[in-house]
Amino acid sequence: PGKKVLIVYAHQEPKSFNGSLLKIAVEELTKQGCSVKVSDLYAMQFEPRATKNDIAGRLHNSEAFNYGVETWEAYKRGALSKDLVEEQKKVKEADLLIFQFPLFWFNMPAILKGWMDRVLVQGFAYDFSKAYDGGLLQGKLCLFSFTTGGSKEKYAIRGDIRYLLWPMQHGIMHFCGVKVLEPHICYAPENVSDEKRKEMLTAWTQRLKTLWKEEPIGCSPEWYFK
Amino acid sequence: PGKKVLIVYAHQEPKSFNGSLLKIAVEELTKQGCSVKVSDLYAMQFEPRATKNDIAGRLHNSEAFNYGVETWEAYKRGALSKDLVEEQKKVKEADLLIFQFPLFWFNMPAILKGWMDRVLVQGFAYDFSKAYDGGLLQGKLCLFSFTTGGSKEKYAIRGDIRYLLWPMQHGIMHFCGVKVLEPHICYAPENVSDEKRKEMLTAWTQRLKTLWKEEPIGCSPEWYFK
Repeated sequence: PGKKVLIVYAHQEPKSFNGSLLKIAVEELTKQGCSVKVSDLYAMQFEPRATKNDIAGRLHNSEAFNYGVETWEAYKRGALSKDLVEEQKKVKEADLLIFQFPLFWFNMPAILKGWMDRVLVQGFAYDFSKAYDGGLLQGKLCLFSFTTGGSKEKYAIRGDIRYLLWPMQHGIMHFCGVKVLEPHICYAPENVSDEKRKEMLTAWTQRLKTLWKEEPIGCSPEWYFK
Repeated sequence: PGKKVLIVYAHQEPKSFNGSLLKIAVEELTKQGCSVKVSDLYAMQFEPRATKNDIAGRLHNSEAFNYGVETWEAYKRGALSKDLVEEQKKVKEADLLIFQFPLFWFNMPAILKGWMDRVLVQGFAYDFSKAYDGGLLQGKLCLFSFTTGGSKEKYAIRGDIRYLLWPMQHGIMHFCGVKVLEPHICYAPENVSDEKRKEMLTAWTQRLKTLWKEEPIGCSPEWYFK
């Protein structure tokens, strides 16, 4: 109660299974007394490309464009583009970040990767001297909630699904100091029965009820590759 | 000689180190008698977002938009958007795909992830019955060539850099049947001496000279997590 949640949502279709998972999260968390914000990336036509347009006014070095340096400098002098400032404000306020998306190619869709690339700039989310447990977003939690195309068995044939979580959970969120909750994975909702789909939705509601009591995972290689 | 190469390049600045690596690859491979094409994603203002705009004409199901199904159907009836058809033609012709990019967040930049999401559609790059060694792009090679922000030592502290190659090399390219060459990694070119940078460029030229004699890696969990 009183907790702030930001859901970063990347699906084109409100009637999709991802849309249902989003709706459940908004309803359940609101019911608990949380304040919930949603960044609906496709609806916002969120820009995934990291370009000069992200810096208002003069460049630090207009001879050779370096996105990392330019956004760091722009952050310090308050010259990042408006859409980024808006997202950073939401991140800053949030106690919990939920990422809701369909897995595309063992990874998040490009529009969500673009959110990571553009919003989590140096100075705001990390500094090279302040990374991982000392990252600038420490004190926050995150949760990756996603659907897959293939079945659980298919993913298990060649390795473990945890392998593909390493770059997202460890390489991004842990790097920024955010603690990671167990991912929430719905396998192949398009290929199962209506009954099974309902069960998956119920399981998400149930999990959210006790979410604030969960312990974060130990985000080290052992969790992923043991 | 006579081989066809497609370089998919994701950097905003021609004067960057990535720009130099691209230039070297184009020059060296052309000198060898290869035919080289470059998809310069930022220069093309390549669209990374997977939306309805990728399908010309009527949707298969306009009640609830499903990107995977719609692009698969559109591929079969020749109704994918022109920019995708153009990229698919380049991929189809190529013997070797080189991906040249700066690592962003343990992964490729969103604009390149968008290329994967949108170009490699079902029916063209894979079918669920024809994946991995039987994938639809078999007979081709690929190589991920990228720069990092942090040093080799930094990446080694928490696990191995190979961990983050799993989703890209195995989850995308291997899934489509493409054989994977050893990645080419230039660590922290922004933080080393001019001399060291020159050495890195020379090493890339040297590698390209004998590239066609290389054996692909064994793209299984052992290579990544042994």
